[in-house]
Amino acid sequence: MVVVVDGMGGDFSPSAVVEGCVEALKEYDIDILITGSEELIRCELLKYTYDCNRIKIVDAKEVISTSEHPVMAIKRKKDSSLVKALNLVKSGDADAIISAGSTGAFLAGSTLIVGRIKGIDRPALAPIMPGKNGPFMIIDCGANAECKPHYLVQFGLMGKTYFENILKISNPSVGLVNIGTEEEKGNELSKSAHKLLKEANLNFVGNVEAREIPTGDTNILVCDGFVGNVILKLYEGAVANIFDILKTGIMSSFRTKLGGMLLKPVFKKFKADFDYKEYGGAAFLGVNGICIKAHGSSDAKAFKNAIKQAVIFNENNVVEKLKLEIEKLSEQEKNISNNL
Amino acid sequence: MVVVVDGMGGDFSPSAVVEGCVEALKEYDIDILITGSEELIRCELLKYTYDCNRIKIVDAKEVISTSEHPVMAIKRKKDSSLVKALNLVKSGDADAIISAGSTGAFLAGSTLIVGRIKGIDRPALAPIMPGKNGPFMIIDCGANAECKPHYLVQFGLMGKTYFENILKISNPSVGLVNIGTEEEKGNELSKSAHKLLKEANLNFVGNVEAREIPTGDTNILVCDGFVGNVILKLYEGAVANIFDILKTGIMSSFRTKLGGMLLKPVFKKFKADFDYKEYGGAAFLGVNGICIKAHGSSDAKAFKNAIKQAVIFNENNVVEKLKLEIEKLSEQEKNISNNL
Repeated sequence: MVVVVDGMGGDFSPSAVVEGCVEALKEYDIDILITGSEELIRCELLKYTYDCNRIKIVDAKEVISTSEHPVMAIKRKKDSSLVKALNLVKSGDADAIISAGSTGAFLAGSTLIVGRIKGIDRPALAPIMPGKNGPFMIIDCGANAECKPHYLVQFGLMGKTYFENILKISNPSVGLVNIGTEEEKGNELSKSAHKLLKEANLNFVGNVEAREIPTGDTNILVCDGFVGNVILKLYEGAVANIFDILKTGIMSSFRTKLGGMLLKPVFKKFKADFDYKEYGGAAFLGVNGICIKAHGSSDAKAFKNAIKQAVIFNENNVVEKLKLEIEKLSEQEKNISNNL
Repeated sequence: MVVVVDGMGGDFSPSAVVEGCVEALKEYDIDILITGSEELIRCELLKYTYDCNRIKIVDAKEVISTSEHPVMAIKRKKDSSLVKALNLVKSGDADAIISAGSTGAFLAGSTLIVGRIKGIDRPALAPIMPGKNGPFMIIDCGANAECKPHYLVQFGLMGKTYFENILKISNPSVGLVNIGTEEEKGNELSKSAHKLLKEANLNFVGNVEAREIPTGDTNILVCDGFVGNVILKLYEGAVANIFDILKTGIMSSFRTKLGGMLLKPVFKKFKADFDYKEYGGAAFLGVNGICIKAHGSSDAKAFKNAIKQAVIFNENNVVEKLKLEIEKLSEQEKNISNNL
């Protein structure tokens, strides 16, 4: 398997990218291509001992920043680390791409260059997040700010395929993010999507109010990309803020400092359980290749785990299975419309 | 001032309602009407010593449950504690209403019976939430699952009036909940609303990503009621879950139990700061009266604070000030269209 990594994406590139790649090479039987400034990446690689036949640099002179217009940047910066990496997936020279750069450009580029799976209307960003009773997926988390009801059924199917193949959880539960548990609650999108999800070949558990999301009791939460992005970021922000507040409290007196010291293992475990770095990146599902968006602030460990995620993706033929699932869905839809 | 309280709304009615009313009477110079089962409420009142000229029961034989269709229930159950209470505000026999019952029925009833302020297209539910650096308001939190861009400008103005008069924060900052900080980010609604908010007479700080909401650095966050409801409930759920997880960790060994004991003041302060009961209820802004939605699980303290909120509302003529603000907005809009 060949993994291409965007060497210039993320807050700590290329150093964290290179270190993550070297670490991954120790654990997985893969070849790695790193796109970006040959000079900078070579400099970083010099710090490590590794099998130099298995990491190759693909020189790219441009970098797409997070402030650029995604589609424009993809179209104009043909010599950017991201576009070069995406083209390697398209041409079949790489089996998977990982980038911690601009989310917008990554999503636009994956769709434009790698392309959609036939039958999928909109690929969707699908991070896995830590819940009290287990991990959960929010799909879509920002690729599609506007959605049609049937996209949400496709999101559910893609989430199911991911859970069954990557997380090895069979028949995962799928819930619709909504503002009430009753079927008739919500906006036009959620009301129509509810009807379609009930008919779909999914373990659909109905509407899920946002209060219940962090329990992790529902495996897959489907919603439009605007709502999903709000959930993803608010959850991150809420956790960070609570810990900031607790930290200030702990540092306020001798007694509380001692208490904080004694509770170190509890906080450490919490931090580890809630560490996005453990979960790799967010898969961009529905594109015709393995596209993993790593967190912008990814360190070497996060890159290594994103590579691991790509490896599992590849070993389990998730893209092929997604194609089969979506074909089945199209068949069902055809049958339904023939029977009407 | 006369406050009418829905005696049958909420998980702990009528006992928590009655206790809250008796407590409020000790602190504020008001008269209270409690609607609901005369027998049950009288029974509760017998437990306390209070000035019986100042609390009166308005008998109502029906109760609207949270599972009923809001508009249907309001139209059919004329003898319910909620409808009777709303009619007392409409007739001018009460200056404010507080209910911890069905949110949907409360919002529908307030709009249908008490009525909108002229010029306000959609009243909005506007709870105040605890942030790291101060409280913030999310408006709308569920009254309007679908919104037009100009509603969000009205939400901003209503929020501003509330902050200036109730929280005594002048020129509060207003942010648009969005999935990116750049102006062109988001869905159709947020893109159009951004343009209008920039032109409005508000301290508009631009788009705010959900990650930043819990800091409280932006006073007022405007969004449609679907997104607002997701934010409100996810925030509640995230806080609750984190504390559940920490609690389990603390109880896991002698060392951590001791640590937890030492940190009690920190946890206690956090709980107090994040206690919705301190904030009273969520104001339903834009209706022609003081309508406060108390949390479904309100205890006596929460009811007392919701009454306090109504008192401050009344003392500061917030409804009248909202009318003036919205008149000014209409004038501006007229001028703009005349100048075009």
